[in-house]
Amino acid sequence: MNYGIVIKVLGSLLLFEAIALVPSLGISLYTGEHDSQAFTYTILILITVGFAMVKIPNKSRRIKSKEALTIVTLGWILVSFFGSLPFVFSGSIPSFVDAFFETISGLTTTGATIIDDIEVLPKGILFWRSFTHWLGGMGILVLTLAILPAIGVGGFQIFKAESPGPISDKLVPRMKDTAKILYTAYLGITILQIILLYIGGLSFYESLIHTFGTVGTGGFSTRNSSIGAFDSSYIVLVIAFFMIVSGVNFSLYYDLYKRRWRGIIRNSELKLYLSIIAACVLLITINLNGKLYDSLFDTFKHALFQVASFITTTGYATTNYEEWTSFSRAILFFLMFVGGSAGSTGGGVKVIRLLILFKLVKREIAKILHPRAMIPVQINGKVISSDVVASVTSFFFLYLILFAVGTLLISLEGIGFLSASSSVAATLGNIGPGFEFVGPTQTYSQFTVPSKLFLSLLMLFGRLELFTVFILLTPSFWEK
Amino acid sequence: MNYGIVIKVLGSLLLFEAIALVPSLGISLYTGEHDSQAFTYTILILITVGFAMVKIPNKSRRIKSKEALTIVTLGWILVSFFGSLPFVFSGSIPSFVDAFFETISGLTTTGATIIDDIEVLPKGILFWRSFTHWLGGMGILVLTLAILPAIGVGGFQIFKAESPGPISDKLVPRMKDTAKILYTAYLGITILQIILLYIGGLSFYESLIHTFGTVGTGGFSTRNSSIGAFDSSYIVLVIAFFMIVSGVNFSLYYDLYKRRWRGIIRNSELKLYLSIIAACVLLITINLNGKLYDSLFDTFKHALFQVASFITTTGYATTNYEEWTSFSRAILFFLMFVGGSAGSTGGGVKVIRLLILFKLVKREIAKILHPRAMIPVQINGKVISSDVVASVTSFFFLYLILFAVGTLLISLEGIGFLSASSSVAATLGNIGPGFEFVGPTQTYSQFTVPSKLFLSLLMLFGRLELFTVFILLTPSFWEK
Repeated sequence: MNYGIVIKVLGSLLLFEAIALVPSLGISLYTGEHDSQAFTYTILILITVGFAMVKIPNKSRRIKSKEALTIVTLGWILVSFFGSLPFVFSGSIPSFVDAFFETISGLTTTGATIIDDIEVLPKGILFWRSFTHWLGGMGILVLTLAILPAIGVGGFQIFKAESPGPISDKLVPRMKDTAKILYTAYLGITILQIILLYIGGLSFYESLIHTFGTVGTGGFSTRNSSIGAFDSSYIVLVIAFFMIVSGVNFSLYYDLYKRRWRGIIRNSELKLYLSIIAACVLLITINLNGKLYDSLFDTFKHALFQVASFITTTGYATTNYEEWTSFSRAILFFLMFVGGSAGSTGGGVKVIRLLILFKLVKREIAKILHPRAMIPVQINGKVISSDVVASVTSFFFLYLILFAVGTLLISLEGIGFLSASSSVAATLGNIGPGFEFVGPTQTYSQFTVPSKLFLSLLMLFGRLELFTVFILLTPSFWEK
Repeated sequence: MNYGIVIKVLGSLLLFEAIALVPSLGISLYTGEHDSQAFTYTILILITVGFAMVKIPNKSRRIKSKEALTIVTLGWILVSFFGSLPFVFSGSIPSFVDAFFETISGLTTTGATIIDDIEVLPKGILFWRSFTHWLGGMGILVLTLAILPAIGVGGFQIFKAESPGPISDKLVPRMKDTAKILYTAYLGITILQIILLYIGGLSFYESLIHTFGTVGTGGFSTRNSSIGAFDSSYIVLVIAFFMIVSGVNFSLYYDLYKRRWRGIIRNSELKLYLSIIAACVLLITINLNGKLYDSLFDTFKHALFQVASFITTTGYATTNYEEWTSFSRAILFFLMFVGGSAGSTGGGVKVIRLLILFKLVKREIAKILHPRAMIPVQINGKVISSDVVASVTSFFFLYLILFAVGTLLISLEGIGFLSASSSVAATLGNIGPGFEFVGPTQTYSQFTVPSKLFLSLLMLFGRLELFTVFILLTPSFWEK
């Protein structure tokens, strides 16, 4: 392991975070609330530590798989650590563990909160809280569309062929090109949503906050009742639309820009993703019609919003879905395990993995009928290698193991099965709220410190595609 | 499809069922209760229908995969259909749907009951109810150790090499030899348990009933409070021991008979199976110690019994485990998805499948560290082909899909998530009781008719390793 380069890159990440804190500082200075000092101190600490790390001498500039994996995991943890300082310094979140939970929840685009009353916090602090979603979303796009495919973690080779940008043999130039295209798409979608929310009557500030929460599929709001605080159907539909947009593989926006219509229309993951959304919205609308809301349109609106919020792992709410029927709530529960598309800002298992598993089942049936036939698994007309199939399977199984072990550990809090299991599914899947104990009207503040730290770890696991973090915990990773 | 031979074999199955009803008829004649007529009528119907079917002319005697698959699924349904007649005729279970549910629950060795008060039923009827467990257990051993490996369904090829008995090229002689060995082991274990229970003070009748429920991993009792009705720790430990014995691959008992110690000691599935049991018993004992029971031994006893009951998918209870802590109940919940070993009478996913999936995860981590290495998945020193890995994965995914779809459908009853999900897990996994609405003090009588039929189908799916039933539902199976 080339520790020099690891420390150097982590140092630049901290310097980058110092810059990322400037807008929040600006807002706190503008509003004149008491939080500006907290930002100033944090920025100074980041600059000091960051420069000290960047200055460390290193022998070689080569970044290989091991270095990349270490940088990604440690980077997310370090940025969360320093990112939680403004909350502590300003007194907004006095406990450091709580502040860390809130920040890693933001940066992993989870949106699980320990703050019981958001509305009393200063604007600069709330801006930083939501801005972590936007930063985390950007980070994850680069991770899943540029870094992981290049080093072949967790079956990410499948997306390699579909990554946007000019093909280059060298790792870093290629990653830089890909990243540039992704940033452009991400920025474009962000600006569009801000404009549309602002037109809809939100203040510029709240347009920014809720756009960050949407495009990062995070879910932090400025309101205690989340999107339910806004009376306008227009706002609800705009946010629902952009949640769905943010759950699509961002490579497809490059195809859209290049007018490669065929690739978009024939994309099997996109088809399945939209079909699941359509089917769930339809089922919930039929199931709830005439029961809870005044009109069919209102029922449809809330169904669409909650389905989009759960499948994209955003976690916004327009209604207390705990009042829904068992059937509709069960749909939301299982959507927690679907997640967005690969290469989107959404978390969870990801639609493409489920698609590959579905195809495996289909092939298995064909194999029983035709034992001697060789039947390949195909996605978008391309054969998926048995290596990638094994990666997808391993991911899925490891995901469920973490879910089961997590639920057991959280059960030690003495809460019921749905509470424990949904808090684990909601953090591992980077969703945010779950059911009962962590329902839409609750927060994570009631958990004990060990549980908060454990759930923070689950967010990191889920966000970094499990193996990225898991591999650092194996002894063989650290062997020469 | 050779329909002639299918009908012929099904006919002999019904004749066999007529014979299997004779002991129950004998008991009802001996006790002089009102149920003997019900058995006589059923036997007469079975003989009439059975002979009519056997007499149907058929062109060829060849049984190929398609015929075997059809016979297995239709056989289980037909035997359940006719097996429910004694319940209806005797008035013990007036509703035919309820009687069918009870019988398929018996024959699939599930043990889910719709009878709210068992203790008022005649002895002949209760004997038949439990005897279906024993018959079903025998059926499943032959299915998973002889029939499925031969036709290669659902990755059962892995067990082929390990099937007991002399190797023969021809399907039927080999299946017959294997079946003979299995029957001997099954019968031996049965007789041993009957003796041990009888020594422990149970009546001969109750020794029989509870042995059938144990070795078939079924779970039907003669008492409303299941094994909790017996005060003796000896009885509890004997039943726990035989549940664990019945969850072991029966091929290993042939190895035991042949004194092939090495194969037994090194068997990875057995090791994992026993380790899971030991770990769960330990965790629950520590977790519950001093909380619910008078002594450490009592805590251990109930922990051992419930863990054995859940992992082997038996479903007997010595205590109301709903009173346990969230943590201990969560352990039981996840054990519902483990199941017994392959080639045992236990249901569920099966330990060997989980073992293969664990190994896949391990290999995935190794592959990230050594991208160019070829690392095979090995079990007991043998390389598992990628075909078998794909079969195992497909099975696991289809199992979870059925679980999710099932939970959604059962949620339409308006019951909570844990009630709905555990009723589905308990029927698909052939366990019996679950939690809350279907907890150990409840029955399945409260479900509506559509739910009862659907849960019956799930029992069949689970018992016949999913694909056996699933494939009959695909149009391509019925094509020429």
